Amino acid sequence: MEHFEIAVIPGDGIGNEVMPEALRVLEAAGSRYGVEFAFHEFDWSCERYKRTGRMMPEDGIEQLRGHDAILLGAVGYPGVPDHVSLWGLLIPIRREFDQYVNLRPVRLLPGLTPPVRDVSPGDIDFWVVRENSEGEYSMLGGRQGEGTPGEMVMQASVFTRRGTDRILRYAFEFARRNRRSLVTSATKSNGIYHSMPYWDERFRAIAEEYPDLSAEQEHIDILTAKFVLRPRHFDVVVGSNLFGDILSDLGPGVTGTIGVAPSANIDPERRHPSMFEPVHGSAPDIAGRGVANPVGQIWSAAMMLDHLGAPEAGAGVLAAVESVLASTDAALTPDLGGTARTGDLGGAIAAAVAD
Amino acid sequence: MEHFEIAVIPGDGIGNEVMPEALRVLEAAGSRYGVEFAFHEFDWSCERYKRTGRMMPEDGIEQLRGHDAILLGAVGYPGVPDHVSLWGLLIPIRREFDQYVNLRPVRLLPGLTPPVRDVSPGDIDFWVVRENSEGEYSMLGGRQGEGTPGEMVMQASVFTRRGTDRILRYAFEFARRNRRSLVTSATKSNGIYHSMPYWDERFRAIAEEYPDLSAEQEHIDILTAKFVLRPRHFDVVVGSNLFGDILSDLGPGVTGTIGVAPSANIDPERRHPSMFEPVHGSAPDIAGRGVANPVGQIWSAAMMLDHLGAPEAGAGVLAAVESVLASTDAALTPDLGGTARTGDLGGAIAAAVAD
Ligand SMILES: CC(C)[C@H](C(=O)O)[C@@H](O)C(=O)O
Ligand SMILES: CC(C)[C@H](C(=O)O)[C@@H](O)C(=O)O
Repeated sequence: MEHFEIAVIPGDGIGNEVMPEALRVLEAAGSRYGVEFAFHEFDWSCERYKRTGRMMPEDGIEQLRGHDAILLGAVGYPGVPDHVSLWGLLIPIRREFDQYVNLRPVRLLPGLTPPVRDVSPGDIDFWVVRENSEGEYSMLGGRQGEGTPGEMVMQASVFTRRGTDRILRYAFEFARRNRRSLVTSATKSNGIYHSMPYWDERFRAIAEEYPDLSAEQEHIDILTAKFVLRPRHFDVVVGSNLFGDILSDLGPGVTGTIGVAPSANIDPERRHPSMFEPVHGSAPDIAGRGVANPVGQIWSAAMMLDHLGAPEAGAGVLAAVESVLASTDAALTPDLGGTARTGDLGGAIAAAVAD
Repeated sequence: MEHFEIAVIPGDGIGNEVMPEALRVLEAAGSRYGVEFAFHEFDWSCERYKRTGRMMPEDGIEQLRGHDAILLGAVGYPGVPDHVSLWGLLIPIRREFDQYVNLRPVRLLPGLTPPVRDVSPGDIDFWVVRENSEGEYSMLGGRQGEGTPGEMVMQASVFTRRGTDRILRYAFEFARRNRRSLVTSATKSNGIYHSMPYWDERFRAIAEEYPDLSAEQEHIDILTAKFVLRPRHFDVVVGSNLFGDILSDLGPGVTGTIGVAPSANIDPERRHPSMFEPVHGSAPDIAGRGVANPVGQIWSAAMMLDHLGAPEAGAGVLAAVESVLASTDAALTPDLGGTARTGDLGGAIAAAVAD
């Protein structure tokens, strides 16, 4: 029996509501597919920050290190500035563990109601490969002349050769292994003077290593329009930290909701634990009411199973999600047009996994 | 009779095809509404760059200075790197003339086929107010260690107090004067550590000066999803140079095409000429075939008329555009589902203006 040690960080808001459903589905998948989990829960959150002044303990990264994977809910809550909560937990984990790939599927699942016309499940099916360790998310910079008329803020983005090449190469490898044959690079080299022309230069260089694949680039402005106008077109879309972030919310938006979208923060070299979290945030507006949609968290757990080398179990969870979403039974949460509660939907998926 | 001196820069690609149509419509509007134009054409373009090594002459800005306004087509062509062509013409004009507002309507015109469901003309009707002079579009930065494994590029963004406050204030003033009452700020203060928290801080400060208006902020990732999921919600959306750029392509994408979208690069203090250009680019893929849609250029000319203090003429041009797009006659270009050529559509709009 395979055995995995999983660090569980529910975090804030609806993170606390969707996480138990993911664990329940994982237990069901474990029994069915012969995988055993030990879950170690950490209360790292904005609530903890308010109590202790830190999102996680000083040795937080060390505490996580021994685990096979990390399952994260959502971080951020009113009263704690976002850049404090995120740079105190989510972003350091991504970086300390060199989870340099943020992999996010954009897939129209059955049962969703997409805002765009004339698309059916299967029509929208692509992946965003987001750089997850550098780029526009940088602590370099600062403020000068505070309070004076000359006040200004400088913000640096950092694109290293190593960081740029490895994410581009991952995108091409991923396309070759799992996909049709098109890699689209998100750029903005007509406006952003230094970093984006460099990104393009490296994209061209890496693309040459993959003559069997098609490569194209689009400026981020028109690319967002094409996500809406031609979502069928895309296969693998690679972008910087910021552009990947934008595209991996917009893509799920085009499928009808970001409430079901998962993500994987991966260290492809497996030197460190990888982290799996839904794309949605802590949603303070609906937190505490028991109506949050747990599918993003559950699908993230399915990606974790794939990564851990239990792809049969991962596929089983995703199939269960699809069958429950497609059914018209009473298990759907309000955002999906139903009246069920978080636990009803999680329970229905767990039951479908066990079946 | 009012008289205006207009600098005309068709630029590259389809810029050369759509510009004559805008001039023709302006002539028609001039006759009808009693406005006279002198058009001074400049051949500044990538073609000129290839010939002379410069997009515009060294004293280009001086040559433009005496004009009442600038009408620009599109810049950029294969063989000239985008960041060369744009930083050699479009961006210096925006900056030298301190056109710090880039104003872009997002409006579902009659006759368009939006990709999103259940929207009719009138349902999508908002404005993007984009910062146009600083932010992420910056020449500060550079490359280090070229060709070594340690190669890296640093790119700075610059947010000054002056630059940030004036665009935010413009957005609130614009909302108070012309709109319903909601200003949405595009941010990413959870990921971008220095600049975006500063943007939020200034947004909160300026919003306090406008207690009669509603103010909200959204992170750019989820905001793009909401453009697709809830386009009716928005009224005035204010964003940095990059975020405004993205949103003002995505918004028109949601209405069916960026081919008809206009923009105004405005110096609100009127110390310098303002510049009017379509949102679309030079479209090398369709250039030279006479099928480009001239509406973006024509609508930009209508915005120019408004700015010049001839709002009746501006409204007349926009009404003519709407009536021709709504008609099922043979004047529509292929991107709008017709078979007409650029000149047919321009001619039909000019005739409708004269009518
Ligand atoms: C061509 C490019 C530099 C420009 C911009 O990003 O400003 C364009 O996309 C626009 O929106 O006007
Ligand atoms: C919460 C925020 C910092 C985060 C990001 O931008 O990386 C989130 O939007 C995501 O996509 O994971």
